Amino acid sequence: MKLVPLLTATALTLAALPALAQTAAIDSGALREEAKGVFEAIPAELTAIKQTEEAPEGIPLTTEKIELGKTLFFDPRMSRSGLISCQTCHNVGLGGVDGLPTSVGHGWQKGPRNAPTMLNAIFNAAQFWDGRAPDLAEQAKGPVQASVEMSNTPDEVVRTLNSMPAYVEAFRAAFPDEREPVSFDNFAAAIEQFEATLITPDSAFDRFLNGDDSAMTEQEKRGLQAFMDTGCTACHYGRNIGGQDYYPFGLVAKPGAEVLPLGDTGRFEVTKTVNDEYVFRAAPLRNVALTAPYFHSGVVWDLKEAVQIMSSSQLGTELAPEQVDDIVAFLHAVTGEQPQIAHPVLPVRTDTTPLPAPM
Amino acid sequence: MKLVPLLTATALTLAALPALAQTAAIDSGALREEAKGVFEAIPAELTAIKQTEEAPEGIPLTTEKIELGKTLFFDPRMSRSGLISCQTCHNVGLGGVDGLPTSVGHGWQKGPRNAPTMLNAIFNAAQFWDGRAPDLAEQAKGPVQASVEMSNTPDEVVRTLNSMPAYVEAFRAAFPDEREPVSFDNFAAAIEQFEATLITPDSAFDRFLNGDDSAMTEQEKRGLQAFMDTGCTACHYGRNIGGQDYYPFGLVAKPGAEVLPLGDTGRFEVTKTVNDEYVFRAAPLRNVALTAPYFHSGVVWDLKEAVQIMSSSQLGTELAPEQVDDIVAFLHAVTGEQPQIAHPVLPVRTDTTPLPAPM
Repeated sequence: MKLVPLLTATALTLAALPALAQTAAIDSGALREEAKGVFEAIPAELTAIKQTEEAPEGIPLTTEKIELGKTLFFDPRMSRSGLISCQTCHNVGLGGVDGLPTSVGHGWQKGPRNAPTMLNAIFNAAQFWDGRAPDLAEQAKGPVQASVEMSNTPDEVVRTLNSMPAYVEAFRAAFPDEREPVSFDNFAAAIEQFEATLITPDSAFDRFLNGDDSAMTEQEKRGLQAFMDTGCTACHYGRNIGGQDYYPFGLVAKPGAEVLPLGDTGRFEVTKTVNDEYVFRAAPLRNVALTAPYFHSGVVWDLKEAVQIMSSSQLGTELAPEQVDDIVAFLHAVTGEQPQIAHPVLPVRTDTTPLPAPM
Repeated sequence: MKLVPLLTATALTLAALPALAQTAAIDSGALREEAKGVFEAIPAELTAIKQTEEAPEGIPLTTEKIELGKTLFFDPRMSRSGLISCQTCHNVGLGGVDGLPTSVGHGWQKGPRNAPTMLNAIFNAAQFWDGRAPDLAEQAKGPVQASVEMSNTPDEVVRTLNSMPAYVEAFRAAFPDEREPVSFDNFAAAIEQFEATLITPDSAFDRFLNGDDSAMTEQEKRGLQAFMDTGCTACHYGRNIGGQDYYPFGLVAKPGAEVLPLGDTGRFEVTKTVNDEYVFRAAPLRNVALTAPYFHSGVVWDLKEAVQIMSSSQLGTELAPEQVDDIVAFLHAVTGEQPQIAHPVLPVRTDTTPLPAPM
């Protein structure tokens, strides 16, 4: 968790900004340089993931792994009921979310938190609202086993996969060097590879970062400036405009219990460290205009209201109405090109495929 | 409902067939001619639907209507919960079904009957197991309103559609001559157009019908011959190998109550005519190898067992084991090319979009 001194800078800037916006045209070159110190553009494509110092080239993405991962992502038979797939809560057609306050899972149970998008999630430092999974492969193992989500077990997933020759063949093709290619680890690794392709380049903001002065409107540029000047970027920085570290929700002032329910202590549940009470991962804001409702509690439907809540709870200030509008305009400019996904034709069940157990 | 004299012909053929199969090679030309008197191949593509005597050209399919229909088909916000779309129970990746005995809908309620496939459904004489909808547009209006399925209302669907500019624009483009293009009727008409594209040509059987002797194996050809000779074609005929008329389930002998639950009287619930008790539409058998479990009750997972039940309940006979195997082989040969569907990017909600009500 990072604690950053926001207030002094913020107060100064707030006084100065509205005047500036009305008097001077924006210097796009200077704005871009400042923004490039904080953000990075989404690349057109990834060819490898999990680069480390020891493996600077990372693990290459392969067509076989990606295709297998896509098939698994869309296959409801990975759930105990036969009804719920990754796609159910992370809809590729809905900005990677389900558009519900909190997700609905096995037996119509209500999950505890709002489903975060998997679009660009490969760029997050860790996964889940509390960062309890270091990467997308670990993340993928969670919902499939959670009793309120897909309610399955790793053994049953592997049994289901082994029952269908088309899956066995696809795992062999994706993991050709392994003795037992059909495994829960490889199930997760393949999904991670597919999700690594779910990136959304070419937003107006990305085109601006990449040198196109005309990609963003004047209001969007003012919003970007305000986003940096008022201190939003203390938490929401990097390629995903967030998703890089953990911060207390209510850094300055706790929001109401509807927005921040007392029962969900966030990262404290992972670390059991008092400092981590009500600490959450800063939400990645890519495509945020598509991912309502907002916050881990999913109770706020209006992006403007979400910006206002962040302003009072995290910055300890009330932004001018024009600044809020400008920031909202900027946040609409970070909607990228949505992935075009061909729905997979799923492998055919056999007599040994476990029966769905919806009831 | 048609009642057809099956038994005499059947008994004769049953005695003659096994010997034939072992002694003589199949005359593909003669088999094709006989089959063409009963079946038709699935065309590569449709350009119009609903041909009538007055309108022999039918209603043309248009790109705008098809694309709109696809978007609606995949949009879970057409349901009250925001969770369930047409695709939930009619999965384009699973042969057009959900692979469950009976479907699960709003609030995890269990539906009364097995979800029929929408693949090639445009070729059925009527829709639903009891034929209560004359066409796919009428069908599409059912599940969206059924309290155990999507649990929505026409007014709420139209309100949801009107709340999203991208939908309003898509309806205008699809129905350019109408004063109020956004309507529940047009919602259904667009879905019907999309579903009319979900046809599966080029199965081994279609290629055989179209002149390719080598498209089917000898066993599949024996199965086709047996399918015609034993009387299956009395009900399962036409382009969809079924789906053309209504017949009593248990024409000769009622199957057990597990397969034919007493509480579901089939078409009687539509016509209130005693003769229609336990009468159902003959299931269309295209892609039947993909659509387990079988029957309106969805309790039979094994295609072979389904053939045996049909044989005893509808034909009043027990087919020889080799005949059952041959027929099952033939039924695998009617699996066509599955549709390749790009998942749509769905319109973005606005502040006036009704909130999902999953609970």
